[in-house]
Order: sequence, then C-alpha cells, then structure tokens
Amino acid sequence: MIKISFPDGQVREFEKGVTPMDVALSISEGLARNVLAAKLNGDVVDASTPIESDASLQLLTWNDEDGKKTFWHSSAHLMAEAIEALYPGTKFGIGPAIENGFYYDIDLGGKEFGSDQFKEIEDKMVELARQKSAYVRKSVSKSDAIAYFTEKDDEYKLELLEGLSDGSITFYSQGNFTDLCRGPHIPSTGFIKSVKLLSVAGAYWRGDEKRKQMTRIYAITFPKAKELEEYLFLLEEAKRRDHRKLGKELELFAFSEKVGMGLPLWLPKGTILRERLENFLKRAQVRAGYSPVVTPHIASKELYVTSGHYAKYGKDSFQPIHTPDEGEEYLLKPMNCPHHCEIYKTKPRSYKDLPLRLAEFGTVYRYEQSGELHGLTRVRGFTQDDAHIFCRPDQVEEEFMKVIDLVLYVFKALGFNEYSAQVSLRDRENREKYIGNDEDWDRAEQAIIKTAELKGLPTVVEYGEAAFYGPKLDFMVRDALGRKWQLGTIQVDYQLPQRFELEYTGSDNQKHRPVMIHRAPFGSLERFVAILIENTAGNFPLWLSPDQLAVLPISEKYEDYANEVYLRLQERDLRGYVDHRNEKMGRKIRDAEVGKVPFMIIVGEKEQADGMVSIRKKGEGDLGMMSLDAFMALAGEEINQHSYSN
Amino acid sequence: MIKISFPDGQVREFEKGVTPMDVALSISEGLARNVLAAKLNGDVVDASTPIESDASLQLLTWNDEDGKKTFWHSSAHLMAEAIEALYPGTKFGIGPAIENGFYYDIDLGGKEFGSDQFKEIEDKMVELARQKSAYVRKSVSKSDAIAYFTEKDDEYKLELLEGLSDGSITFYSQGNFTDLCRGPHIPSTGFIKSVKLLSVAGAYWRGDEKRKQMTRIYAITFPKAKELEEYLFLLEEAKRRDHRKLGKELELFAFSEKVGMGLPLWLPKGTILRERLENFLKRAQVRAGYSPVVTPHIASKELYVTSGHYAKYGKDSFQPIHTPDEGEEYLLKPMNCPHHCEIYKTKPRSYKDLPLRLAEFGTVYRYEQSGELHGLTRVRGFTQDDAHIFCRPDQVEEEFMKVIDLVLYVFKALGFNEYSAQVSLRDRENREKYIGNDEDWDRAEQAIIKTAELKGLPTVVEYGEAAFYGPKLDFMVRDALGRKWQLGTIQVDYQLPQRFELEYTGSDNQKHRPVMIHRAPFGSLERFVAILIENTAGNFPLWLSPDQLAVLPISEKYEDYANEVYLRLQERDLRGYVDHRNEKMGRKIRDAEVGKVPFMIIVGEKEQADGMVSIRKKGEGDLGMMSLDAFMALAGEEINQHSYSN
Repeated sequence: MIKISFPDGQVREFEKGVTPMDVALSISEGLARNVLAAKLNGDVVDASTPIESDASLQLLTWNDEDGKKTFWHSSAHLMAEAIEALYPGTKFGIGPAIENGFYYDIDLGGKEFGSDQFKEIEDKMVELARQKSAYVRKSVSKSDAIAYFTEKDDEYKLELLEGLSDGSITFYSQGNFTDLCRGPHIPSTGFIKSVKLLSVAGAYWRGDEKRKQMTRIYAITFPKAKELEEYLFLLEEAKRRDHRKLGKELELFAFSEKVGMGLPLWLPKGTILRERLENFLKRAQVRAGYSPVVTPHIASKELYVTSGHYAKYGKDSFQPIHTPDEGEEYLLKPMNCPHHCEIYKTKPRSYKDLPLRLAEFGTVYRYEQSGELHGLTRVRGFTQDDAHIFCRPDQVEEEFMKVIDLVLYVFKALGFNEYSAQVSLRDRENREKYIGNDEDWDRAEQAIIKTAELKGLPTVVEYGEAAFYGPKLDFMVRDALGRKWQLGTIQVDYQLPQRFELEYTGSDNQKHRPVMIHRAPFGSLERFVAILIENTAGNFPLWLSPDQLAVLPISEKYEDYANEVYLRLQERDLRGYVDHRNEKMGRKIRDAEVGKVPFMIIVGEKEQADGMVSIRKKGEGDLGMMSLDAFMALAGEEINQHSYSN
Repeated sequence: MIKISFPDGQVREFEKGVTPMDVALSISEGLARNVLAAKLNGDVVDASTPIESDASLQLLTWNDEDGKKTFWHSSAHLMAEAIEALYPGTKFGIGPAIENGFYYDIDLGGKEFGSDQFKEIEDKMVELARQKSAYVRKSVSKSDAIAYFTEKDDEYKLELLEGLSDGSITFYSQGNFTDLCRGPHIPSTGFIKSVKLLSVAGAYWRGDEKRKQMTRIYAITFPKAKELEEYLFLLEEAKRRDHRKLGKELELFAFSEKVGMGLPLWLPKGTILRERLENFLKRAQVRAGYSPVVTPHIASKELYVTSGHYAKYGKDSFQPIHTPDEGEEYLLKPMNCPHHCEIYKTKPRSYKDLPLRLAEFGTVYRYEQSGELHGLTRVRGFTQDDAHIFCRPDQVEEEFMKVIDLVLYVFKALGFNEYSAQVSLRDRENREKYIGNDEDWDRAEQAIIKTAELKGLPTVVEYGEAAFYGPKLDFMVRDALGRKWQLGTIQVDYQLPQRFELEYTGSDNQKHRPVMIHRAPFGSLERFVAILIENTAGNFPLWLSPDQLAVLPISEKYEDYANEVYLRLQERDLRGYVDHRNEKMGRKIRDAEVGKVPFMIIVGEKEQADGMVSIRKKGEGDLGMMSLDAFMALAGEEINQHSYSN
C-alpha cells in the first residue's frame, strides 16, 4: 500500500501501481469522466500512469489550467491525424498547446492551403474523435524512433530526435497516428467534442528565418459544444471591441506613417477621454498627499549612467541625441524615476519631510521592434501615471496601504470590479542576489503581504520573482469578456536611492537613506485606454464620454434654439455638439448612437415654444420632455454618483 | 525760403539754412531746452544741422527713442573724456548706445580696473558735464584723421579708419576730447545731469575671440537726477523680482546638471502654478471652439523633411535619434505644427468642417548654445500653448478676430493691462518673395489690420517683416516695471498646407487648400511663468497661488483641529498646508509671508471652542475671526471675481 495526499490535505491509502484514473473512479464515476490528466508530485502526467510510491496527487480537469493545456496538446495530435488522413505525406514539425487552443506546424510539400480547407479538417477531427481512440504511450529506442520517421521521410521529427538521448524517447499513438512526444495526454480522443480551426499563418522551422517556412494552423477544441459557441462569441465580441477598430471609428486616436510607427496621435475625442482620466487621478492624488511635478522628456546620458538604465538598456533603446557643436549627449526619457531622484536632491530633506510623493504624468519613449507594436497596448511612446514615494523604511507599510487604497479606488471608479495581484518576493535560498539589507527586505515583504491581506486583495505570492532591487506587487483586472490584463504595479526600490546617494537627516541627526516606491495605477495611459475601450466597447461612463450629448434640432428652424441650449449646457461644463446637418431625425439619432453619445437632446417646435428639451438616452430610449435644468440635474447626478470630477 | 513739414501734418516756411534748434526756438524756449537731436527726412541729425531745402522734420527729446539713443551716445563720449583725463594714454574702441544706457570698450594698457574706480569716473563726468561743452562736428580728411590717431597711438581707431573712405570721415569734439564718430550728438554735455557706471566686463575687439580683450564699461545717464533714482530703483526691483531668484526661493522650478542645462524641473509648487495656467487656457479654448489633441515629442525625420524644418534648422538642432537595428531616424519635436497637419490628414475634410482648431500644450525641444540659456526665458525644452486653425481663406478675418479676443482675455486675466502689437506685412515692392496668391495675402493682411483696429489693439505696422509664408501679428505686454515683453503671436501660413498637401472639399465639390493660422497666447509656458513671476514679484493672484493658505495651529494642542480645518478646505479644492512645526506663531506667519501665501488661518483655543478660524491676509493683516464657511465664501469670491476656474 502507498499513501497518496490530495490538495485539500487529505491522505488516503491505495495499492501500489494504482493510476490517477483508478483514484478518480474510487471517488466517483462522474469525476472519472472528467479527468484529463494528473499532477503527480508536481509533474503533469497521463491519468493512466501507475503510482509506485507515496505521492501527492491532483486530478486535472478542464477547470485546471494544466488540464486545458493537456486537452489542447492532445487535440493537436488529433488535428495531425486528420491532416495525415486527408493529405497523406504531410510532414509534421511541432504542435504545442498555447494560451487559447493549439497549433501544429506542418509541411504540405508545397500544396496550397487556406481557410477553405478548415471545414474538411474539422469534420475529419470530429469523425476521429467519435472513435474514442485511446492515447497510448510507448517508450522507444532512439534507433527505432529514427527508423520510424526515416520511413515516413519526416526530416523535422528526425531533427528533433537528434537532440534527444536514448532512453528518454516516447511515442504517443491514437487511432492511425503516431507522434514523437513526451506527453502527457488525455485518456482518449472521445473527450474532444467540438473543434474549430481559427487561422493559418507562415512560421519558420525552429523560428529561424533562414530555415524552411512551414504552415502553422491555429485551432481550438472544447469538451462541450456550448463552450465552443461561447468562445466564438467572445472572439467575435473581442474583435468587435478591438480598441484599434473602435479607436478609429470613434475617432479617439490615429497613427501616421510620417510621424512614426507606435507613436499615437490623440485625436480630439481621445484627448478629452485621456484628459478626464488624468484629471480624475490627479485629483485623487492631490487628496492622497501627492505633489505633482513636470520633468523634461530628455536628459543628459549621464543621468542614465548614474541610474544604471544606460548600461542595462542603452544598446536596445533609442540611441543618444547629439548636439550640433558641444559634444553633449542626451537620451529620450525611458523612465521618470531618475528625474524624480534629481528633484529629491534639489534641497536637503529631513525625516519630517517624508514621505515625499512626487507624481507626474510622464511621457516616456522606449524602442520596440516594429513587429511587436500593437495599437495602444504596445507602443514606442506612452504616458505613465507615475509617482515615486520617497519614505523612511518604517513608512513602507503605511505607504503600501495608501497606494493599494488608491489603486482599488481607481479600478472601481473605472468599472473593474474583479482584480487580483501577484506579490513578487525574494528567492529565500539566494538572499545574496538582492541589494538592500535583510531587515528592510523582511519588513517590506511582510508589509506588502499584510497590507494586501488587510485590503482584501486576492493575491498569489511568488518567491524568487522580486527584482534584485526590491519586492513588488502587480495588479491584474478581469474585463467584461473575462480576459485578464496586467495593470498597475507597486515596486519597492533600494537601488536608485543608493545610486543617486539620496539622503535625509533622521531624528538622530544622522544621514539615512530613504526607500523609494514606484507606483502607477494605470501603468500606461495608452494601454489603459485600450483596455477601457475593450472593456466598455466604447460605451464610456458619462463623466468620461468625449461627447456627453448631442443636440439634435428637428429642422433648421430650430437651429438657434439648439445653439442656445448647447451654450447653456457648455456653461455647465457639459460637452458635445449640435448636429446642424440637414438630415432626418432618424439619421441624426442613429449617428449619435453609433458615436456612443450617452444623451440625445431633441429640440423642435414644441420644445422651443415651452422652453423645454426632449431627452433620449442611449440604450434606454426616450426619457420624455423636461426643462433644461431638469436634464442638467439628471446628467449632473449621473456624473456625481461616482463623485468623480469631470 | 524752404517748407518744413512736421509729424502732425503742419507745414511752415523757414529761411534756408535754418537749424532744427532754430525751429525749436521759434516754437518755444521750453521746447528748445529739451531738444537733443532731430529727425530730418527720416535721418537722425544734430540739432545744429542747417536745413537747405524743403524737408520733413521731427524734433527729438528724451521722450523719443532716437533722442535717448543720441543722449546716451553723447554720454559715451563724455565717459571717454573723463577716462582720458583720469587715465591718460587709454585707447578707445567703440562706444555705442544700447537699450538701457551705453558702453565704451577701452584699452587701459594693462592697468587693473574694477568697480572701485566707478566713483571717480562718475564724479569726473559730472564735473565735465557742468562745463556744458558743446559737441562740435568737423569733417576731416582721411590722412588728417590717420595722423591724429597715429599721434595718440590708438590702433583701434586706426583700424576703424581703414574701413572708411575719404570724404565720409567726421570727428566730434567736446571739451578736451575728440573722437572719430559719425554722430549725431546732443547740443552740449550740459544736458547730462546724472551719471551711473553699472558694470565692467571683458569684450574682444570687434567681437573676435582671437583679438585683444578690451575692458567694456557699461553706464547710464539721465537728463534729470530723479530719473536715475527711478532707474536704479527699478534695477534693484528687477533684481529682487528676478524669476531665477524667486523660482528658487519659492521652490517653483530647479535645474540639475545631470538632467541637463536649459531643461527645467518643475517642482511641486511650480507645477501647481503651471497646471492652473494650462487649465485656465484649456477651459477658455474649449469655449472658443478649440479641439484638444496630444502628439508625441518625437517624429520620423521624414515629417520634418516634408515640413521643411529639417532643411532649415536640422544642422543647428538636436541631432537625429537612431534606432538600434532598423535604421530609422527620429527627431525631437521642435514644433507642433507638422504633427497637427498629420492629424488634419487623418480623414477627409469638407468646407463644413472648417475651421478646425487643434490645440495642444506641446512640449518642444530646440537646441540653444549653453551661453544663450537664461532661467526660464531661454531654455532647451519648453511647452507651447500651441494651436493651429485650419480654415477657408474667407474665414481668416473671423478667426483673427476670435484669436485676438482670446489673447486679450488671457492678458487681462493675468494682469497685463498694457499691451500693443506689431503687424508684419509683405514688402510691397517684392511680392514675388512670398508664397501664396496675391488675393489671399491682400485679404489676410487687410483682415489683420482691420481686426486689430476693431479690437482697439494699439499696433505698429511693419512692411517687409512678414515671413515668406504669411503675415503675422506679435503681441507685446508691458510689466509692472515698465519693461516690454514679447508674448503671443498669430501667424498666417500658406506654406505648410501646401507642403502637406492639405485639402478640403468645397461647396463646389472641388478640392481646395485650407489656410493655417498658428497662434500661442502665452508663447511658451516657461517664458510666460518667468514674466508672471517678475510682474507679480511672486505675489500671484489667489487662483494661481501654489499655496493658497496656510493653517497655523497656535500649539500642538490644536493640531487635530488644524487638520480638520485643512481637510474641509481641501474638499472645496482650496490648497495649502498645515504648519505643524513646533515654532512660535510669529515665525509661522513670517514664513508664510515669505512664501507669499495669500491667507493664513490661525487656530487656537478660542477658534477651536467656537468652531471658528482667525484669518490673516498677506499684505492686509488681520481680518478677524470667522466661520470656516465665511472664509471659504471670501476665498471663493476672490477666485471667482475673475471668473477663472481654479
């Protein structure tokens, strides 16, 4: 008998040689039907693996990340089987699971391949899945493996075999298909109920652009048909909400080749949105005791030599800017922290002056390969909602607490109600890798864990993930489509205060070194706006809407009244436009709705005669006729119910 | 008899050979006592110059710029006479009038010279002036002139003579001093009543650093003793108000060698001031129909090749930024206009969409020699309150009108009530020098002149001063010390729309080219803040004050109450600090006054017991005890009386 311990802490005895699937069956048949693989002493294995000694065991289902990955990896084999059946002679490269689904790189020997052929492969996969073929593992000698793939004339697998040593080679077979694979796999193809090929692209063998270009087929599978439907819906919805598409349609931002790739131009409507976000956070920061600063977008190279950024990133960044005659060298600012250290140094600081919280909406420039650029989420110039808190070591905990408060306030205000965080701490075994003293680290790490807990922030603690200069906490939010985005970060830093020789005079009249905390709730304004667009599908809350209202005169007879109404609204800092076009009301309303304008204010004969307005709200329809004051009260309430300034 | 016409249009007859001084005497003896020189047919001449034919004549006094210049030039001769008397053998270079006073470059033959010696020169000058020596003009032949200065062994004057041709050489003598000089001069040294030597510096002969370094003595003189006193007071006051000094004392901005020369770091208090100015103008611009945009601080070099800036300024600017691997070249943005042209091009525009007014607080970087840098007035990075109006040719007049309205609104709001403008138009004789068609130029020039007049803006029209791409209007303001500063500008531009091939579809369904108007009321935020500091001596109006109030608890017993009071003020968006220091009230008040804090809110036992506050206003003293609401109403009224947002 052997002892098996489970994730919930239970320990049960089983006969030696028992498999995870046997264990599942011993619990319930229902569970067994869902077991895809297992985690044995931390390694993912087939559910059919015999367990020979005491072990910890976790049964993996579709709800586990590793269960999904195994499912998709097995699905890649199924797709390969279907392709081999349909296109005999196809050679196979690699076919891993990815974040959403899997791909297989194949060599069709020059045959044309496109999305027209997706359907027949999908159908074949479903047909093969219905046969419920088991995935069978077999250890093979290197010579047998070479013989097998030599016969199949598959130079890719043969090349992969070159890197493997005898005794470590396994084949997996299901139905008529056998692959070189270290596994693990799901019990049988029968688990795979629905199948969708997503796209096809070219991919160099082993990522080397000098090698052969293969055909990469992306696909996804699910254990239930309904889940595929949901996935496809979300995929469609994600496309519909793509911030690049909405950014163009709503005229929020644009790119110009002449200005440069990855350098967004904020159009008027996007600028209004962006400024509202800035003003909102500025106001919250003033109340939280931050001091605003403004620093230039360049600095002498020397500054980054001091900060260490030049040695670390200099070669891969925008290169130095030379002056025409004096031989000076400047760099585009990749980070705001060195500038803020110089502000700290503009006068002597005492322990009573701390914490000093310097905040800047600082635009930074970082070089990215053109292929890496993506809308507003990956750019070459972006604005950080940056701040640096210079504090005493004994203030780290309180400052962390305040920063978490501020970050959660921001998330909630902007409609992100599902969030979590990762706490990155030192590797316990290699303390010498980190700068700063042990006592300060312990204090800071404990402070982060404790404050996150106190604030009810769901966290994962990762040891060894801290930067060498300090521990940190990264926030994640989940959007309306269930996607996770990494947002703000809080980072303790013992290094820059040392490099810049920052000091304060303590109550003991001695010089001490402050601790620095970097923090940015949005992270990057550009990226945050992208996420906000995708989360709201462009239906921003009223206080953020670029156009809060559209005044729609029924005909040109009411233009003067429309202008008068708009002027009064503008005086109350409401914003929007008057639609002066000679168009039918239906068209004006539709265009305002397409433009995601929250309120339509319709004025015609009756409204003018009574000095009233008729209000239509996007998504809610007609709110009837009311006085302008009543409307302004209504709009004001909607803006103020979040108590965020406009 | 000859006819002489005067500036007021009068024409009178005089005998041939009459001098301006005779003419003055014919009007009044009082006038004659004040005549320093004259403008004859546009040239400045001695008041003793005989007039031989019909002419236009303007008598010049101390109130005329040319009168002052003549006075100071004559004073330079007087100083030279004094120096020659005190230091025989001194050689003289040049001694011109400058904006405020004059200088003379002298060679003392190696003798030490410093400000200790100012007094004896001043005394000698006054002594010589009291002799009322006439300035006597004499034509001399080149050979006589060479003989004269050879005898004096003055190689400087001899070198100057080399460049002159026979027949054009004149000497001026007063008392014992004779100088090579083309004049004109005032009638006699007797006009010079008060004298002040200001400073001494080294200056290379003919500005060539390879030539000999001479001693440059700066001085100023006046026709009345009182005027010198006033001037010295203003000079002292200007020093006291120097924005570099106040900027440091009030902690508004700082420079750091590591960040780089000419790249200001805006400290928290300066940032608050700067943001108030930005917000104020942003709000005014929204109401005036501007659309805000944000563009990056770099752009592909290509953009500036298209705009023409690279060809014109590329060599003298910050050099291109290279990327690590893709061979792209970027430039720091020296101007925002090319970016705004690219925004114009993001979609097709119709005549109905115009004017399009794109506004950006755009930070630009321009290389300046390190020797040219000066506080915030001459920097290498600055933020323009920039906007570009894209309009139809028929809209130029209305747009000019609106821009002038906005600029004057801004000036008045910021306490500049004395302003004027220069209108720069085409050279009438060389129309082919300018791009754009004649009809558009005529229309734009007329529009500028007409609107300036309509708005009651005092203007000077300068022909030939327009840029080749369009006419412009530059605003000047006069500060509290009477100094003139050039501020905002409005510039019509026919060139960039052409270079960027901007178009709109007209009502005729044809493509047309829009006109571009560049405008910036502040010009540069940095420079404007410098002027604002010097104009107010740091006593900013309440709405702009970085700290609007200081809460001063009488002792630590009232700290909680002080905090509570401050929190309530902060909720109403009033800003400042609580002075928690363990200092006497006198010290706290003094420090708040030194920090130019408008309101001091004193809280002690009585205030706490009654839930009141005692208010002290800087410059006005005690306002007594009142409720916090009463104080907030008072402060709110002071902020709102200008109806500017905070």
